[in-house]
Amino acid sequence: MTEQNRQILLVSRPDGEARADNFRLVETPLAPLGDGQVRVRNHYLSLDPYMRGRMNDTKSYAPPQPLDEVMIGGTVGEVVESKHPKFKAGDKVVGMFGWQEYGTSDGTNLKVVDDTHVPLSAYLGPVGMPGVTGWYGLNRIIEPKAGETVVVSAASGAVGGVVGQLAKAAGCRAVGIAGGEDKCRYVVESLGFDACVDYKAGKLHEDLKAAVPNGIDGYFENVGGEVLDAVLLRMNAFGRIALCGMIAGYDGAPLPLKRPALILTQRLKMQGFIVSEHLEDWPQALTQLSGLVAQKKLHYRESIALGLENAPEAFLGLLKGRNFGKQLVKLI
Amino acid sequence: MTEQNRQILLVSRPDGEARADNFRLVETPLAPLGDGQVRVRNHYLSLDPYMRGRMNDTKSYAPPQPLDEVMIGGTVGEVVESKHPKFKAGDKVVGMFGWQEYGTSDGTNLKVVDDTHVPLSAYLGPVGMPGVTGWYGLNRIIEPKAGETVVVSAASGAVGGVVGQLAKAAGCRAVGIAGGEDKCRYVVESLGFDACVDYKAGKLHEDLKAAVPNGIDGYFENVGGEVLDAVLLRMNAFGRIALCGMIAGYDGAPLPLKRPALILTQRLKMQGFIVSEHLEDWPQALTQLSGLVAQKKLHYRESIALGLENAPEAFLGLLKGRNFGKQLVKLI
Repeated sequence: MTEQNRQILLVSRPDGEARADNFRLVETPLAPLGDGQVRVRNHYLSLDPYMRGRMNDTKSYAPPQPLDEVMIGGTVGEVVESKHPKFKAGDKVVGMFGWQEYGTSDGTNLKVVDDTHVPLSAYLGPVGMPGVTGWYGLNRIIEPKAGETVVVSAASGAVGGVVGQLAKAAGCRAVGIAGGEDKCRYVVESLGFDACVDYKAGKLHEDLKAAVPNGIDGYFENVGGEVLDAVLLRMNAFGRIALCGMIAGYDGAPLPLKRPALILTQRLKMQGFIVSEHLEDWPQALTQLSGLVAQKKLHYRESIALGLENAPEAFLGLLKGRNFGKQLVKLI
Repeated sequence: MTEQNRQILLVSRPDGEARADNFRLVETPLAPLGDGQVRVRNHYLSLDPYMRGRMNDTKSYAPPQPLDEVMIGGTVGEVVESKHPKFKAGDKVVGMFGWQEYGTSDGTNLKVVDDTHVPLSAYLGPVGMPGVTGWYGLNRIIEPKAGETVVVSAASGAVGGVVGQLAKAAGCRAVGIAGGEDKCRYVVESLGFDACVDYKAGKLHEDLKAAVPNGIDGYFENVGGEVLDAVLLRMNAFGRIALCGMIAGYDGAPLPLKRPALILTQRLKMQGFIVSEHLEDWPQALTQLSGLVAQKKLHYRESIALGLENAPEAFLGLLKGRNFGKQLVKLI
């Protein structure tokens, strides 16, 4: 039996903003499974801001996404056929199969997970790369102390929500920055942040100042641009900034930092990181995060697009902040 | 006997560039020495870039220099009269008496030094605050490993010269950035750096690229502005940047950082520091630095203005990079 696989390829690189026609949906027949291989039907595809960087052919921490190949990305799904001793049909797995319905693998980077207490999709969110990203930046770079103020941008997103909730649990004042009243309400009421600043309300500096009466000790940056400029002006001496994303500058011209001298005058530490380079911390982080999700002490929200063919549009929306919570594509 | 003291006061704050008329020379009679006091005739006054920041009335790591008071600054001199048990006439001392010929103190922040093997003026340079500044930024933030490339701006200056020589001693490739052919020649030929880039030659990016064939792992920043932008483009993954000075932005409008996203994509650490906040490291640093100076293994150069009245002009020249080596005023 030959089944068809549907895949989305990157077929051109953006000149400025990413566009739907940078991608193409193709159908390809699935080759028969070889010895030592395992085949997975993906249930969810993760869409993440880092993918925008991979679309460019510029120097970065990772090689660019090759043209005319399946777009990369994290996936969760179920083993449908296995000629690999470690996997059997029915296993739920987390992988990196990218934007396609079926993935075939020799088992590398494929992990069986238990979805009894943790929903399968959460392995792409709070109990996956986004969750560990928040955990790492907070615990390894910001190193929050009780009583300090921690601010996070894109606070309603997959990473930001984890950062704020873990900061609260560490005894900090947690303040989010998000786009729009709905997201801000969710950040405070559902995620339990102390405050949230709506950067779209037109008075970012004023609202941020009011939200951090004691200044800012730790900042988790997912956004860059004017938000970073505003936060820098409120940083306390010896503050720590974990740079995780600069999504504001992913499309188009590089965004400058207006007052870098504040890093000196306030004796700040600003550090960029990529969570996949710190695998030694993943087990500890995932143990904590899966425990919190299973106990329903760590809240999160998903924004789910239906069908592989809608992945490009959902991805472009993510870059514009149109998602609300972790952006997924459900592969129906 | 009443002697006259000559002092330089800050009498106005700069609006943009600092100017000579921000300062005023005054003569004041010396009050008779009280019990527990010690009087010092200053021999050298240290001029340092940080003083420009203190002239502004803006939020910074230190309170602004008050108007109509003696400009702050490090000094070395000799005790001429003492009613303090720990000091006697003839003692050579390092203090913070500022821009004046005589200093009177209760002994606070006054330290007797030995000028047998280390010239007195060196306690304002390689064996003083500038030397410890270089030592701290290199050892505590950059943490160089043998084989790495370390770059330092203002390389012919009091701090920069120490950074490069210590980096060489640690087995690194040391590359300076300095203004003008003479300074660059001195940095390579007298201080032993592997290379030096003349930022005034008009092709900073090209020359820097040629000077760091393996990229940059550690950067000690004394300057800011376009030099920092150029260096950032050449930083290797996991590079460390010690921010010590942003002198390029001290006068006038804040200078932006053009591509802050490189801190993320290259996973850099950028950290500002003020050496006076790390007193726990001074003894170790000074022991090493004074040993190296006494053995003539650490080289340095001084730019000496003669007479207190010439301090403002020398200071303004320092801000323009007209000094060559550590800027001092000899109080004749």
